[in-house]
Amino acid sequence: MKRSNRLVSLTNYFIENPEDHRSLTYHAKQYNVGKASISEDLDIIDTVFQDEGLGYLHRAAGAGGGVRYVPEGSEKNGKQFIKTLCEQLEDPSRILPGGYLYMSDLLGEPKTVREIGRVFASKFIHRNIDVVMTVATKGIPLAYAVASFLNVPVVIVRRDPKVTEGSSVSINYVSGSSRKIQTMVLPKRGLKEGAKVCIIDDFMKAGGTINGMISLLKEFNARVHGIGVLAEADDEEEDRVVEDYISLVRISNVDAKRQEIQVLPGNYSILN
Amino acid sequence: MKRSNRLVSLTNYFIENPEDHRSLTYHAKQYNVGKASISEDLDIIDTVFQDEGLGYLHRAAGAGGGVRYVPEGSEKNGKQFIKTLCEQLEDPSRILPGGYLYMSDLLGEPKTVREIGRVFASKFIHRNIDVVMTVATKGIPLAYAVASFLNVPVVIVRRDPKVTEGSSVSINYVSGSSRKIQTMVLPKRGLKEGAKVCIIDDFMKAGGTINGMISLLKEFNARVHGIGVLAEADDEEEDRVVEDYISLVRISNVDAKRQEIQVLPGNYSILN
Repeated sequence: MKRSNRLVSLTNYFIENPEDHRSLTYHAKQYNVGKASISEDLDIIDTVFQDEGLGYLHRAAGAGGGVRYVPEGSEKNGKQFIKTLCEQLEDPSRILPGGYLYMSDLLGEPKTVREIGRVFASKFIHRNIDVVMTVATKGIPLAYAVASFLNVPVVIVRRDPKVTEGSSVSINYVSGSSRKIQTMVLPKRGLKEGAKVCIIDDFMKAGGTINGMISLLKEFNARVHGIGVLAEADDEEEDRVVEDYISLVRISNVDAKRQEIQVLPGNYSILN
Repeated sequence: MKRSNRLVSLTNYFIENPEDHRSLTYHAKQYNVGKASISEDLDIIDTVFQDEGLGYLHRAAGAGGGVRYVPEGSEKNGKQFIKTLCEQLEDPSRILPGGYLYMSDLLGEPKTVREIGRVFASKFIHRNIDVVMTVATKGIPLAYAVASFLNVPVVIVRRDPKVTEGSSVSINYVSGSSRKIQTMVLPKRGLKEGAKVCIIDDFMKAGGTINGMISLLKEFNARVHGIGVLAEADDEEEDRVVEDYISLVRISNVDAKRQEIQVLPGNYSILN
C-alpha cells in the first residue's frame, strides 16, 4: 500500500480507536511495510492532529513500545466550543416553568454530544479512568461520548431495578434541592471492585444526584477519579454538596417572568 | 499544506462528518489549494474507504456539486460483526430469571455500540431519515450511534413526562407480551410535523413498544422510514405486531433451567 493510502487508513484507525496502544510491528504488518515507513506516517499524522487541536500520538520506545492516539483536545477548541454552547443556551425560548431550561434539542445532536465528550475526555484522559458512570436518562449520550474517547465502558445507574439487569445493589440518598429521599440502583455485574470511575451528568443543582452516585460507588469499593457536568445551576452554590467537578456551562439568573437568562462558561474555562 | 497532511486532515473531517455535503471550493479554501488537488485527494480517500468497507465518497458534479461521505458499511463487515455478537451473546452466564438475557456489558462498550450503529445506518442511509427515535433507556446509545452516521438528531420517548422537557404529547398503548396498558411521552418540541423517522431499540419481543412509538408518531403526523432492533426474541413470532424491521440477532431457545441459549443472526443477514 502506498503512503497516501496508508495515511488515510491509519488516520481512520486512530480516530476510531483512541487510547488503544499497539506496537509498530502490528501496524507494519497490517500494511506489509517496514517499521521505519510506519514511523514516518505517524510523524505526519501526529503533526496534523496537533495542528488541529485533536490531541497527539503518544509513542513508547523499547520492546513493549508502540503508539496510541491520545485525544486530548486543545483548550482553545474547548473554550471556543463552550462559548458557542453558551450562546445557544441563552435563547429565552428555552426557559420552562420552574426555571428549568430546555436542552433536549442540543443533547439530541450527535455532533454536539460528541464535542461535549471530547472536552470532558481531554480533562480526564490522564486520570486512569476504568469506567464512565451516569444516571438515566439525559446523561447517557454524554457518558458514551466521553467513554468513546477514553476507550472505557459505560455503566448506567437507574432509579428502579430492571429484570434485564440481573441482581443489583441499591441505595437511598437525599436529593439536594427537594430534600426528598430517592433510590438508585446499579446491576451487580456493572462495576468491578476497586474501579476508577468518572461520573458524567447533564445537569447539577445542589449535587444530590451525583452525591448519590458517589455513595453507590462506595458499595462497590470503587473510587471517583473525575466528575463532569454539562451545566451547573449557580443559584444552589451555597448548598452544593459536591466539590471538585468540572462544568462546561453555568446557568444563572433564570427569570421565567421576564424571560431572561444568563449562561456563562463553567469552571472548565477557569480551572486551567 | 502538503498532500500527505491534507489526507490526514480530510480523512478526519469525513469520519467526523458523515452525510455532510460540502462543495469542492469549500475544501479547497480550507487548505489553500486548487480544486484539482482536492479532487485527487478525494480519489485516494474514496479508494481506501471502499477497500476497507467503510462506505464511499459521493461526488455531485455541476455548480451545486460537491462531496459527502456516505458511511454505507459493507455487508461483509456487517455480517462478520453480527457473527461475533452472536458468539458473545450465547454465553449461558447471561441467562437471567424469566428467560431474559444480560446484555448491558456489551451495550456498555462504546466500540460495540458504534459498530451496531454503523450496521443499522448502512441499511437506512438511503431512506431519507430526518430523525432517529428511541425509548428510554437501553435504546439510547444505539440511537445516537445510528444518528451519528446518518447525521440527524435523536429524540427520546419516555415513560413519564419530565419537567425539563416542556409540554409533551402522551399516548397509551398495549404492551405486546404482558397485555398491560402503558404510557409513552414525547416533548412537543421533539419532533417536526411530517418528519421521516427511524425507530431504534435494543430488544423486541412481540413489538408492543415499537408499535407504541408508531402510534405516538401519528400524533405528530410523522412517518416511519425504518425500524431497527438489536435483538428479537423469536418465541413471540406468531404474536408479532410489527412488520418490516431489521434485526441484527435473534434470540431463541432460552432455557434458564438447562442454562442453554441460542443466538442466531437476525434478518439483517438474510434480507440482502
